Amino acid sequence: MAMKPGIPKGTRDFSPVEMAKRNYIFDTIRGVYALYGFQQIDTPAMENLSTLMGKYGEEGDKLLFKILNSGNFLSGVDTADLNEANTPRLAARLCEKGLRYDLTVPFARYVVQHREELTMPFKRYQIQPVWRADRPQKGRYREFYQCDADVVGSDSLLNEVELMQIVDTVFDKFGVRVSIKLNNRKILTGIAEMIGAADKIVDLTVAIDKLDKIGLDKVNAELLACGIAPEALARLQPIICLSGTNREKLATMKKVLAGSEVGLKGIEECEFVLDTLAGLGLKNEMELDLTLARGLNYYTGCIFEVKALDVEIGSITGGGRYDNLTGIFGMPGVSGVGISFGADRIFDVLNQLNLYPQETVTGTELLFVNFGSAEAAYCLPLMAQARRAGVRCEIYPDNAKMKKQMSYANAKAIPFVAIVGENEMKEGKITLKNMVTGEQSLLTVAEMVNIIKK
Amino acid sequence: MAMKPGIPKGTRDFSPVEMAKRNYIFDTIRGVYALYGFQQIDTPAMENLSTLMGKYGEEGDKLLFKILNSGNFLSGVDTADLNEANTPRLAARLCEKGLRYDLTVPFARYVVQHREELTMPFKRYQIQPVWRADRPQKGRYREFYQCDADVVGSDSLLNEVELMQIVDTVFDKFGVRVSIKLNNRKILTGIAEMIGAADKIVDLTVAIDKLDKIGLDKVNAELLACGIAPEALARLQPIICLSGTNREKLATMKKVLAGSEVGLKGIEECEFVLDTLAGLGLKNEMELDLTLARGLNYYTGCIFEVKALDVEIGSITGGGRYDNLTGIFGMPGVSGVGISFGADRIFDVLNQLNLYPQETVTGTELLFVNFGSAEAAYCLPLMAQARRAGVRCEIYPDNAKMKKQMSYANAKAIPFVAIVGENEMKEGKITLKNMVTGEQSLLTVAEMVNIIKK
Repeated sequence: MAMKPGIPKGTRDFSPVEMAKRNYIFDTIRGVYALYGFQQIDTPAMENLSTLMGKYGEEGDKLLFKILNSGNFLSGVDTADLNEANTPRLAARLCEKGLRYDLTVPFARYVVQHREELTMPFKRYQIQPVWRADRPQKGRYREFYQCDADVVGSDSLLNEVELMQIVDTVFDKFGVRVSIKLNNRKILTGIAEMIGAADKIVDLTVAIDKLDKIGLDKVNAELLACGIAPEALARLQPIICLSGTNREKLATMKKVLAGSEVGLKGIEECEFVLDTLAGLGLKNEMELDLTLARGLNYYTGCIFEVKALDVEIGSITGGGRYDNLTGIFGMPGVSGVGISFGADRIFDVLNQLNLYPQETVTGTELLFVNFGSAEAAYCLPLMAQARRAGVRCEIYPDNAKMKKQMSYANAKAIPFVAIVGENEMKEGKITLKNMVTGEQSLLTVAEMVNIIKK
Repeated sequence: MAMKPGIPKGTRDFSPVEMAKRNYIFDTIRGVYALYGFQQIDTPAMENLSTLMGKYGEEGDKLLFKILNSGNFLSGVDTADLNEANTPRLAARLCEKGLRYDLTVPFARYVVQHREELTMPFKRYQIQPVWRADRPQKGRYREFYQCDADVVGSDSLLNEVELMQIVDTVFDKFGVRVSIKLNNRKILTGIAEMIGAADKIVDLTVAIDKLDKIGLDKVNAELLACGIAPEALARLQPIICLSGTNREKLATMKKVLAGSEVGLKGIEECEFVLDTLAGLGLKNEMELDLTLARGLNYYTGCIFEVKALDVEIGSITGGGRYDNLTGIFGMPGVSGVGISFGADRIFDVLNQLNLYPQETVTGTELLFVNFGSAEAAYCLPLMAQARRAGVRCEIYPDNAKMKKQMSYANAKAIPFVAIVGENEMKEGKITLKNMVTGEQSLLTVAEMVNIIKK
């Protein structure tokens, strides 16, 4: 036999069980997005490189998968380019399309391209694969799914509130306990004003994050070493040692940032979101967390991040508010707020905690054993009846040995097997075997359906 | 403003309404596949070119989208190749990956790669986009979805029967009346034996197809012109004029093909499939159709094709039995049978016949008008309650003019609007406006949910 064929590194096949799990995740997220009035769109896998290039930094440009022009791809290439071996310039001649790198840039492109048809505020979600020519490693793939929802064209904080409700509902449906962390870019800007430098905000959040591990003295020493002035450091102490309930934290912050208009605005925004959510009976904790500093160049208001409480895996969902989605395409003033569920990590979390509902992972619920053509002919109408009642069933297509048919049922983890031989045909019934308990009973189709669907 | 960004030719964005329709189609097909014990798999968008090349003929190779190698893509290229400008050879050096062209070759690759994990018979379905660098035209795209189901590892005709039941159930769920046409490669082989040349089978089926339009004499003249011998033509007359019920057609064919073992085998197979289906209460007609000659190089047994009865659009689903799925990857003996729903054409058929259920196209069911922060705060818990009851609802995020909020509801085709002002807050109720009838009533949340979900 020839060498086994393989797939490109960093890509994956999804087996039936993996797909059932992935479908469960996507269907759950889709359902919740829809409950909040978000509508799904889809954009093509290929975008023009002019849409993608320059949007993800120089590093990102290198990670784009580029598609060789069809036909005579050399037609636009001159020999000088070839001989110079300037790969970026040559790539631009050889390729005009690339695979999408994320869902944000295609969404921005979509909003600009279709702006006349869109009703603002526009609430869209999108669940599609993206491709990155990253070095593959554990948990990092070259093809993976993103599940983004955004509202654009509205500054209202009710949007932030809804997104937090969505996060809470989704993880509640999954049965995963999470902590939903909230911060605000404006609070960080306020703090930056205090310490005299925006670029020290990252050092500060990193240092605060270490407080539990290394203690206050070492944190302060680190901050001084980063170049934060002693007076600023003194004023920072309540922020570094910030603790208590969200309400207590906000009260402290208000005092510390009393001199910063933008800082106070950030606090007010968080306060509104937290107060509003407090009345809505979330199942998970919201936590104000100043160490949250994701997407600093992009986000301009609230920032969120979700961590699983019972699995060590990092952030499994995140998002925030941005001021300018479509400026890159020459359409200014489109602000919005979005979240993105990390499907691959959620997949791992549900696996580790064994939280997939049995129903969603079970494919076929009922296998009819095939004892020959007469028996099969008798079974087919019964199967049609069971299917009309929603039972997922199949008949083993060949009259193989019983043992082989039973191993098929076991391999597919089919929970019930129907045995129909001469006796059953005479009585007009079915012997149903529960593959877990081994129990067998002689039943009508209706009785059988009731047991399976119970 | 800068030039509007666009997307590569032959690709499409799917708007919310289009996506809702597409989801309805896919979810329906998924649901039916699952009822018959088929399980979904997913394969990566990118395959190694070694997997794809040479599988679709020379023309197909040209239509593959190839992906430029990452990093220094010139490293494997020597200047001789460049100067020669041999594009196929150069492409092979520049690219080792391509986008999948169909779902069959990736499925064959999957079966070979995972053969140790698979339980045969393996019933899989796959709903994914494929890419072809075809010249785009009306109804032909460079990115489109295929929805394939196959059973491999079983020769039983029960598989054919099940696939026909699936086709019947899917179109019944869609409310589309179809004709399911059945033929068999072996019957065609038998006929070819009769007329002395396998390559004349296509001429024959084309000619038979014209019988209604041009009449018997002209059909016969055409066949003689194709080089069919007069004696053969005489024996062919009952086939050309074949009519009546499936049973009558089979009886005629049995006589005509009495001398061909393979031909009789094909008739027997069709007879089994048709007889078995006759007892299963299909909603649509099955028709034995000798003009069906799709995939002659690939299919070896039953061939099917589905045509919509109320829309002129060509085949909307097709498939058949093949003997050798995985031989191209050095694993012989894997026979199977499959079908493929033509999602794009089904989309058009449902559009033309206006058959999308309102429920599936409706996004948000209920919009809460925003009269300000106090009213919004009052609405949010009511909305949480409505959502728990499955009502898809949203609040207009900004306190905009009533007119603007109502046009938003209209633009999104939201069927109900909830109006909550001072009065409603005092009474603990909601004024629900039916956007179609204009009717308004003062209701509790529970009453409102009942009306919306009715």
